[in-house]
Amino acid sequence: MTVGTNRRVLLAARPQGAPRESDFQCVAAEMRPPDDGEFLLRNRYISLDAGFRQWMNEGAGDGYLEAMQLGEPVMGLVLGQVEQSKHPDYAVGDWLMCRSRWEEWSLADGSDYMSKLEVDPELSPSCYLGVLGPTGLTGYFGLRDIGKVQPGETVLISTAAGAVGSVAAQIAKLRGGRVVGMTSTDEKCRWLVDSVGVDAAINYRAEGGLEAGLVEQCPDGVDVFFDNVGGATLDTVMAHLRERARVVLSGALSTYNSSEPVPGPYNMFKLITQRALMQGFMVTDYVEEYPAALAEMAAWLKSGELRNLEDVVVGIENTGPAFCRMFQGGNRGKLVVRLEESA
Amino acid sequence: MTVGTNRRVLLAARPQGAPRESDFQCVAAEMRPPDDGEFLLRNRYISLDAGFRQWMNEGAGDGYLEAMQLGEPVMGLVLGQVEQSKHPDYAVGDWLMCRSRWEEWSLADGSDYMSKLEVDPELSPSCYLGVLGPTGLTGYFGLRDIGKVQPGETVLISTAAGAVGSVAAQIAKLRGGRVVGMTSTDEKCRWLVDSVGVDAAINYRAEGGLEAGLVEQCPDGVDVFFDNVGGATLDTVMAHLRERARVVLSGALSTYNSSEPVPGPYNMFKLITQRALMQGFMVTDYVEEYPAALAEMAAWLKSGELRNLEDVVVGIENTGPAFCRMFQGGNRGKLVVRLEESA
Repeated sequence: MTVGTNRRVLLAARPQGAPRESDFQCVAAEMRPPDDGEFLLRNRYISLDAGFRQWMNEGAGDGYLEAMQLGEPVMGLVLGQVEQSKHPDYAVGDWLMCRSRWEEWSLADGSDYMSKLEVDPELSPSCYLGVLGPTGLTGYFGLRDIGKVQPGETVLISTAAGAVGSVAAQIAKLRGGRVVGMTSTDEKCRWLVDSVGVDAAINYRAEGGLEAGLVEQCPDGVDVFFDNVGGATLDTVMAHLRERARVVLSGALSTYNSSEPVPGPYNMFKLITQRALMQGFMVTDYVEEYPAALAEMAAWLKSGELRNLEDVVVGIENTGPAFCRMFQGGNRGKLVVRLEESA
Repeated sequence: MTVGTNRRVLLAARPQGAPRESDFQCVAAEMRPPDDGEFLLRNRYISLDAGFRQWMNEGAGDGYLEAMQLGEPVMGLVLGQVEQSKHPDYAVGDWLMCRSRWEEWSLADGSDYMSKLEVDPELSPSCYLGVLGPTGLTGYFGLRDIGKVQPGETVLISTAAGAVGSVAAQIAKLRGGRVVGMTSTDEKCRWLVDSVGVDAAINYRAEGGLEAGLVEQCPDGVDVFFDNVGGATLDTVMAHLRERARVVLSGALSTYNSSEPVPGPYNMFKLITQRALMQGFMVTDYVEEYPAALAEMAAWLKSGELRNLEDVVVGIENTGPAFCRMFQGGNRGKLVVRLEESA
């Protein structure tokens, strides 16, 4: 089998604030077959994750990942299948989730971060980027180990219509919480109630803003705040924390786009008077627990207790625009790009 | 026995920023003997605690305590002994620690917060306001339950020359930590090394400020930060947190004097990438564990492993000025006022 053209998306410019379509460029490159010790992946799905935005900044390397390079393919999570292999550990047909590049084909030697997946034939492979992927597992472990939701507690979720939030909200319901989701439009509020199944939704852009929404929907305060936003959102919520509240710091969307430092909450003192806890985590710390977590979540999916809520875009050329749309709040659930058959 | 003049310190003005001597006024008032159900306390020591500053602000009531009233005696922790009693639960000679008022004598009916003390005859009664009081216990429980110091870990203490910090630093040493104390003068740095026993001290007002001090004294980062300050100090330290660091929020000195909201740390995202925890607590939550903790700490005091470091001012008329001096960083260890014999 030969390999033809490989379309890839380059980082054409470093985004200033929210990413724009012109920051990305889709180009065609020639591919060569794998050498000894290499294998070729046919990428099937690209996962779009807001968290990667920060590594598009100049000098963003932080000991976790290096900053992306201008003119090089954008870094991201990709789900692919081995098409050709000259590597003893990877067989044709294997499914792999890789932190690699926005491209249709990837040559690899196993040195990039990647993990083999046993794709359940009853489930869509794309589940492994969303509800059964890092975003879903972020909700699972964050609520389990930091949020520690108890039945009847009020659980507030920011960016609840996003990839992480829409799974976290469902899991908080499964754990017995009264779940309140925050999002940016009335239409997404309805989606949260109807599709995600939250008990109440707050449109933080409505009159009165988040504060009025919290007074109305969380009149007795918030026991668990699962936060993807940080900044002013976190600050506003902190004034509503109940005693012994837990703040799960899952992401800090408010800082990814910012070229200026974003202040932390003015209400830090609330953590003391409310004896509250705030903790960050990285889902990758739980890698040894993934199999057990995925088994539990896959069972929930099959029983219908958990839904795979995804927003699918088709074609590599739409990857950059879809990534930009995510920062405008345009997605419902996990945003993935399905790559068309190529070559 | 008759009771004569009772000198008391009134809140003459609400402090703007750091308190000034003119915010307090020492006046003499007549006292009456206790009625049925009341008892009279001869106050021996007044504890000066920066945390009370916040309740001097207009409308500062926060569900924990009410704001102090202008023209009324200043609220504070006081250690007294029952002098006369017409209350069945309080006997002449009993030692009581009360959240009451800056005054020489107090009439009480048991409805204010107070707790009886068994004063160990081998120890100074004032220990119960400092190393064996709320400030000492704050260090004890904060390091035990949130800091969870492991031997060899780097423990950084802000306001290490203060009442809470000087005990926390000693306990962190007893727990096997490598302890670094922060303070505001070279002279206090020497006191930290010589009297408190820290491994290293940082004068955050020296050239290069706190950042340079951290680079020099905590080159591998900070495992546990016991913070009494908040604000910019917390922000700077957060950039130096090690993975799985714990930030113990014991106080927020930077906010007590401020009439404007103080932003939280810009480095909040560090909590995520470093999987770090930040938690507030109130020592009063541990009231049931006080006896066991005090027994352990009293044993340390008698064996010389822990020192009672206190800064004693004499006379009720010096209470206001001493409180102001504390906000200038003028004290070494726990600041207490010893009341002279009166009446």
